Amino acid sequence: MSTDCPFCQPTGMLLENDLAYAIRDQSPVNPGHLLVLPRRHVADWFDTSAQERQAMFELADAAKAWLDTEFHPDGYNLGINVGDTAGQTIFHVHLHLIPRFRGDVANPRGGVRGVIPSKQNY
Amino acid sequence: MSTDCPFCQPTGMLLENDLAYAIRDQSPVNPGHLLVLPRRHVADWFDTSAQERQAMFELADAAKAWLDTEFHPDGYNLGINVGDTAGQTIFHVHLHLIPRFRGDVANPRGGVRGVIPSKQNY
Repeated sequence: MSTDCPFCQPTGMLLENDLAYAIRDQSPVNPGHLLVLPRRHVADWFDTSAQERQAMFELADAAKAWLDTEFHPDGYNLGINVGDTAGQTIFHVHLHLIPRFRGDVANPRGGVRGVIPSKQNY
Repeated sequence: MSTDCPFCQPTGMLLENDLAYAIRDQSPVNPGHLLVLPRRHVADWFDTSAQERQAMFELADAAKAWLDTEFHPDGYNLGINVGDTAGQTIFHVHLHLIPRFRGDVANPRGGVRGVIPSKQNY
């Protein structure tokens, strides 16, 4: 645990299991935008264990079921940033679970390819 | 298997295991942009099994190690689009593994949040 890491002392947990938990994104890009995180303080996705990954995706499944009921989205993006060059700003692994709604962008084609905005559509 | 699905009859496999394989993205957003896929024809990430997910992320680990050697990126994005509203265009699950390089965009902050371009930075 890192004492200055906001994700090591979470508030407002929506869902949790032994190795992971889910919270709302504090700057949601769409209604219902959540984060799923390992409890352990680890910065880099590639340093997570198979058990942590399974726990995170089990929570993502449960979160998706809850979001379907609450927000009725038409789709989802899942994504992880690894390193500041990739857009990571808090160095405790977090999986973005982003509900998508028809019409939320003019042309959704490409989705997560939008990490390089000029190449999102193709 | 779907006879008209390009990901059911892959060519140019870079890495493979029993349940998953990796290929190059045909429209890479950055050098080294790969896709990791389950062998089984399944459209929706939330319909993949725990075993398929583990196989996919084991391949992503191996692909990352190879990309580190070949391309020396500074970071990575991982992402999955679920549904056309989320930008999915081929309806066989594929995980994007995107190497990132310092300076590849003016402001990388937000990363996968870029599925909603106006909200990527915050």
